[in-house]
Amino acid sequence: MKEIKIGLLGLGNIGTGTYKSLEMNKDIIEKSVGAKVDIVKILEKDIDRERDITVSKDQFVSDPEDIFQDPEIDIVIELLGGVEPAATFMERAMDCGKHVVTANKAAVAANYPKLTEAAKRNNVMFKFEASVGGGIPVLTALDGAARANRYTEVLGIVNGTTNYILHMMSEEDMDYETALKDAQAKGFAEADPTADVEGIDAANKLSILMALMFDKYVHPKDIPTTGITEITKEKIAEAKANDCVIKLIAHATVQEDGEITYEVRPTFIRTYHPLANVLKEFNAVYVKGNLVGKLMFYGPGAGPLPTGSAVMGDVMEIARRII
Amino acid sequence: MKEIKIGLLGLGNIGTGTYKSLEMNKDIIEKSVGAKVDIVKILEKDIDRERDITVSKDQFVSDPEDIFQDPEIDIVIELLGGVEPAATFMERAMDCGKHVVTANKAAVAANYPKLTEAAKRNNVMFKFEASVGGGIPVLTALDGAARANRYTEVLGIVNGTTNYILHMMSEEDMDYETALKDAQAKGFAEADPTADVEGIDAANKLSILMALMFDKYVHPKDIPTTGITEITKEKIAEAKANDCVIKLIAHATVQEDGEITYEVRPTFIRTYHPLANVLKEFNAVYVKGNLVGKLMFYGPGAGPLPTGSAVMGDVMEIARRII
Repeated sequence: MKEIKIGLLGLGNIGTGTYKSLEMNKDIIEKSVGAKVDIVKILEKDIDRERDITVSKDQFVSDPEDIFQDPEIDIVIELLGGVEPAATFMERAMDCGKHVVTANKAAVAANYPKLTEAAKRNNVMFKFEASVGGGIPVLTALDGAARANRYTEVLGIVNGTTNYILHMMSEEDMDYETALKDAQAKGFAEADPTADVEGIDAANKLSILMALMFDKYVHPKDIPTTGITEITKEKIAEAKANDCVIKLIAHATVQEDGEITYEVRPTFIRTYHPLANVLKEFNAVYVKGNLVGKLMFYGPGAGPLPTGSAVMGDVMEIARRII
Repeated sequence: MKEIKIGLLGLGNIGTGTYKSLEMNKDIIEKSVGAKVDIVKILEKDIDRERDITVSKDQFVSDPEDIFQDPEIDIVIELLGGVEPAATFMERAMDCGKHVVTANKAAVAANYPKLTEAAKRNNVMFKFEASVGGGIPVLTALDGAARANRYTEVLGIVNGTTNYILHMMSEEDMDYETALKDAQAKGFAEADPTADVEGIDAANKLSILMALMFDKYVHPKDIPTTGITEITKEKIAEAKANDCVIKLIAHATVQEDGEITYEVRPTFIRTYHPLANVLKEFNAVYVKGNLVGKLMFYGPGAGPLPTGSAVMGDVMEIARRII
């Protein structure tokens, strides 16, 4: 039986979740792929942290070149987070002939042309399913099984923190500050929630969706973005009075003249719309295509194991093609 | 540029929709695949019917062997409907070395072991995305990007006719007979609606989902099945009083001992559940996996262009792997 060897960059929460995903479901993963799948090297400084996974100390490396230049390694998984050095590492890995998988929306959105060009130039695969919608296999579907469509629109609830806060404001009658504190207490919001509540994270994901669906790259900084910090109890009540709920929507539409308009902002959604029942920290991406009409993909937008599910899905897809 | 050549079995409504899907989006499809994609031969007796597509009479053949034995043809699309001769034709096509794509749930569900075995024996691909959930790319996702999961449950609204009837009973206060007539008038139910309203069509789809998700094949006739013909206004009112809606659910669960239980029956669904907002003729498949937790895929469960979208998705996936 062949073996697919992986180098993993980063063993934080998401890295550990991905490692654990492979550990938990190795039988299913290897049966589906038809090959052994192993993480053989890990770039990580913090060797001693308790992680509840079986990892041996000699798997750890401190120099990323130990992974990039290892001729045995087929795939590099990047789970460092942040734009740099993640983007530079991914490009370097591809230049060394490695296929690359990442969950890093900030690095992908800020460097989409450079990274896809690196994949093309090196004839390797570059996959980033987990970067939008966490565990939801939406990118693979939009670029694969639904790719026969001419897409005309996308509406995404692509940030779990803000969806949770808006849900608690609407369903539990909390004000914004209370809901934010509740989200932080439950682990759905970070200590510094800026990137989430200001819509920056959602703009990263919209940038990636647009590039994939419309072949149009817009840097996330150039996407008009309004977060949820100004949402009041009065606004929530106004939505309810109009049979709506407020959701932070990442939205892009192809206009009649072919121009694409795009923005991230809090939006009234009718209560009978499928996006209205995307509650708490869940995510969903709703798209329109000229053949299929309307599609929606729903699931967990974050979390170590859901992200591990999507990352391993990308790994398996690459593995199937290279064995 | 390479060319992928297709033989099409059947140019009825779905066959025409598939042909039209390729015609409408040929630029997108060929760009994504990196090859020309053409339907070169069509098995169909009714040559003269007006179809609103550009098809030349010399593409038509009356003997399926003209397609199976044509060394130029890479892929056979089966859209005849019904179990036979569709199943025999698909096996024969694979025995002749052709990759096969179908939308035919009845033929796939009744012959799953035989057809997947034929694909394996001939080392060809056998794809049937459109057989469950119409245009929703659910099978490809479950068997691909989400395949790292150990699935534990599936709940599907996989029949548009019954979902439309139940919707009209619930939202428009119709009784069953009135809602059925309305569905027939709008083209959502056939003149003989038995296969839909008795749950037979949903059982076919559950059989396919179970085979794919749990590697467990159950013939659709062995799935306990209750349709919607006994649903009364009183039952609808009872659901509402309990903050529920009634949906015809195709359901399979892995029990703690590993046994899988399965059935198709009308089921109370809480109004805040994502499946509750699957209205009218729409379909959705809701699954649980041990990594990702909950996923739902929503979209049109039938129709010529949505089915064409899924069929062409399968064709493109095969094309990417053989060019």
